[in-house]
Amino acid sequence: MRYLKYQHESATHYGVVEGETIHELEGSIFGQHAKTGRTVLLGDVKILAPCEPSKIIAAGLNYHAHAAEVRKTAPAEPLIFLKAPSSVIAHGEAVVLPTTEHRTDHEAELVAIIGKRCKRVKRESALDYVLGYTCGNDVSDRTIQRSDGQWCRAKSFDTFTPLGPFIETGIDPGNLEIKCLVNGEVRQHSNTSMMVFNLQTLIEVASDAMTLLPGDIIMSGTPENVGPLKSGDVCEVYIEKVGTLRNPVIFEG
Amino acid sequence: MRYLKYQHESATHYGVVEGETIHELEGSIFGQHAKTGRTVLLGDVKILAPCEPSKIIAAGLNYHAHAAEVRKTAPAEPLIFLKAPSSVIAHGEAVVLPTTEHRTDHEAELVAIIGKRCKRVKRESALDYVLGYTCGNDVSDRTIQRSDGQWCRAKSFDTFTPLGPFIETGIDPGNLEIKCLVNGEVRQHSNTSMMVFNLQTLIEVASDAMTLLPGDIIMSGTPENVGPLKSGDVCEVYIEKVGTLRNPVIFEG
Repeated sequence: MRYLKYQHESATHYGVVEGETIHELEGSIFGQHAKTGRTVLLGDVKILAPCEPSKIIAAGLNYHAHAAEVRKTAPAEPLIFLKAPSSVIAHGEAVVLPTTEHRTDHEAELVAIIGKRCKRVKRESALDYVLGYTCGNDVSDRTIQRSDGQWCRAKSFDTFTPLGPFIETGIDPGNLEIKCLVNGEVRQHSNTSMMVFNLQTLIEVASDAMTLLPGDIIMSGTPENVGPLKSGDVCEVYIEKVGTLRNPVIFEG
Repeated sequence: MRYLKYQHESATHYGVVEGETIHELEGSIFGQHAKTGRTVLLGDVKILAPCEPSKIIAAGLNYHAHAAEVRKTAPAEPLIFLKAPSSVIAHGEAVVLPTTEHRTDHEAELVAIIGKRCKRVKRESALDYVLGYTCGNDVSDRTIQRSDGQWCRAKSFDTFTPLGPFIETGIDPGNLEIKCLVNGEVRQHSNTSMMVFNLQTLIEVASDAMTLLPGDIIMSGTPENVGPLKSGDVCEVYIEKVGTLRNPVIFEG
């Protein structure tokens, strides 16, 4: 099933996407919901971010080859940090560079959207609490990341968490091709099977500390070949079976 | 003015506290509000956390003497990180230790509660966006903080952000006595004038990156003499003019 959050004629809905058709839903996709019978074409709506997370939990250095390129060893246990919910933007919205003097990188990531409140779940049952998957871009001001040491601020600028476009359910997150393209050129290319810790383990460790709420997201880390974005670029995150998240990059000055 | 969020006869309200009397409010303290005319005694209500932050922005190493005790130099610019909103508890609620095998510390902090949405505010006008101040405890699993390097997880366990009890308005945050007491014994004792970066500067730097929303909080860092909490302790954060935040500490096993 492919869910979408969208705006149509100034109203906001969730829908189920089948081909180019959106079947409007009533109720919440995090609880009871049903088709209203109304449909609209995908091309006629404004796509919104797939959820409004109360927290964004992200995994650092979670692909061996990415850890190596930033001259770190992969962590012995999942390395979790937080991004500000105010950094989320939708498919199609612009990543706004706060300055041209810093290096700001793309980081393509598979994102799990939590469907049910949970605490201290074990990895064996962790995916039972996931509603579905979407594409994410953990945009990172590398200059600030290096000077702060703590990663939160560098990754929490407004517009630094593009998410979407869809929530794809019923897939195995453990073996999906993942790519980042800038202006159509492949920059990152890997497979989610190359993660150091799989999503089940990330959810176990995150939920051991924090109660996870519906709509919270787990960003599962980025593969190797992160690289800089500049004003005028178009950045795409492609994940097999999940979709393509496309965002222009601008600098407003 | 002293605001309080509370529960009385299963309904939740904001109120204005005058002595032992709460004057019930209608509307939002982040917008239009007025006294309803109903009153209740402070002793007859359950005190709730003063706000529900969409993000908790905290400053690290923001008192010189605390930076020194953890063998760091104070940062050259404000060092900001995030805590999970799910870690908030109210005055009187228990800090639950997830394990007895880690060292978990108290950190008394002055907390600013943002009153108005803002982005890129300058320090000169930063306090215009603050609704008021409350006491906070940035409870920290030191063992995980050290092993992760990133601080988010160690400080985001459920119950690790006691806040309250009041929101005090119209005070100068720059010169307030601050203490942490454990079982009545003074453990931390300083003054907010000893901060490396004052609240105005923290808000300038935080809002340069992130849109701040009503109810978001800025935790301004802890003074020296952080120390461990154990099950059975009662931890109090006292801040001059702001109040006393009291929380028992338990381990559930």
